[in-house]
Amino acid sequence: MHTITTKPWKLTQAVEHYAESGVRGVSVWQDSAQELGPLKSGDLIRENNLEVVSYVRGGFFPHSSKAKRDKAIHDNKKMIDEAAELGAPMLVLVCGAEPNLDLEESRKQIQGGIEDIVHYAAENKVQLTIEPLHPMYADTRSAINTLRQANVMAEAIASEWVGVAVDVYHLWWDPDLEKEIYRCQEHGNFSAFHICDWNVPTTDLLLDRGLMGEGCIKLDQIKKWVIKSGFEGFHEVEIFSEKFWKQDQKKFMDKIVKSYSDYWRS
Amino acid sequence: MHTITTKPWKLTQAVEHYAESGVRGVSVWQDSAQELGPLKSGDLIRENNLEVVSYVRGGFFPHSSKAKRDKAIHDNKKMIDEAAELGAPMLVLVCGAEPNLDLEESRKQIQGGIEDIVHYAAENKVQLTIEPLHPMYADTRSAINTLRQANVMAEAIASEWVGVAVDVYHLWWDPDLEKEIYRCQEHGNFSAFHICDWNVPTTDLLLDRGLMGEGCIKLDQIKKWVIKSGFEGFHEVEIFSEKFWKQDQKKFMDKIVKSYSDYWRS
Repeated sequence: MHTITTKPWKLTQAVEHYAESGVRGVSVWQDSAQELGPLKSGDLIRENNLEVVSYVRGGFFPHSSKAKRDKAIHDNKKMIDEAAELGAPMLVLVCGAEPNLDLEESRKQIQGGIEDIVHYAAENKVQLTIEPLHPMYADTRSAINTLRQANVMAEAIASEWVGVAVDVYHLWWDPDLEKEIYRCQEHGNFSAFHICDWNVPTTDLLLDRGLMGEGCIKLDQIKKWVIKSGFEGFHEVEIFSEKFWKQDQKKFMDKIVKSYSDYWRS
Repeated sequence: MHTITTKPWKLTQAVEHYAESGVRGVSVWQDSAQELGPLKSGDLIRENNLEVVSYVRGGFFPHSSKAKRDKAIHDNKKMIDEAAELGAPMLVLVCGAEPNLDLEESRKQIQGGIEDIVHYAAENKVQLTIEPLHPMYADTRSAINTLRQANVMAEAIASEWVGVAVDVYHLWWDPDLEKEIYRCQEHGNFSAFHICDWNVPTTDLLLDRGLMGEGCIKLDQIKKWVIKSGFEGFHEVEIFSEKFWKQDQKKFMDKIVKSYSDYWRS
């Protein structure tokens, strides 16, 4: 089971190539749903025998001003509407961080923001999925930087409409990763699992992810932990890469399919 | 009390500017001690009324092959010799990471490496100072990425000749930072404290550090924790920056002095 996103393709191009490459599901970024709108995008994906895995990405709750925090709540509700139209079971949250605030305050505002919209998410049957991001994104993207933090927050909110996304790129370095994967699943919060690799060397903080097997992440080890935890969802390939996005996307797709099958064989 | 390193200067140039700028101490990188050799470098520093704070940097213990691990032990002993000649009370360890090994194995090899040389360090009266590095360096530079990991290791080795260096650049994002700073000091392991800032945005993984106040690190908060812990050592300025290294180094020095006094006023 897997899903991928190759950014340069429009959704109408992508679904065709995805289906013929054996892809089973797709997570949809907001910008790629704009071509047809979320409702028709969802239909198109399902017509091509693909599953809508998630809608990406809500969050960005912390702000210095109340007006901006209110706007974030408004924007997240709109994304919940769109996720529901798309037929996505979850909205992935990049929780946000505000460089002017201290991290504890950003974290409080994140939890407050999720609590403010969780009833709305429940009404729309869209789960809010907290994705902890690598500590190198703690300045502006997320003040939630470990799986433990995401687990603690999901357990505190304690709603079936809040879950956690585990991305190897963000979390591979964490000495608590194995333990927190089991904890995440035991509490019913393990909703999504993203794979790629950490290039050695990494030349860009955002857009230099590797294909599985190209980098130094011990993917076979993490895969074992995820399977042992009982998680049965998609192993989603998510590769942000200027290098690969510049190449022929069909060939990139072939590389993804190959590295994905190698990932399962190892 | 503070120390700095501005890389483009040779030591003979640097000491002159340091002294006139009110700098009190200097941490010496191995390459900058090559000009005069460690013995004469130490004398020159002291003649200019500067203190030798530390020698930088040992470590890099983990390797796939035993031959390379043995070489690392050999190289670290040589650096202990040089630190002793220089008159440095500590050798800062960038512990290392080997992308082919899993992180747990790298960590075992780090602890084993330190244990192999700690008696030699004690004989030479040079402390081995474990510096946890940001998780973005877990591929090749260090498998020790949080202060908790460094504390656990220092406590396990339990020698007065092993300590810990706290660098805000590596650790500012960590939700356990305050707690682990106090723990570090309570166990007698808090040996060094490095300051700079995290630029927003950061454009390079290694060489884009900011002057204190330029970035998003809540330095006043961390400074308070460090002082509350009872740590009384230097607050060392350590700014790796292609941008600043390209500029006139005297002007860079002036900027450091200004941001350092602003740091103490805040």
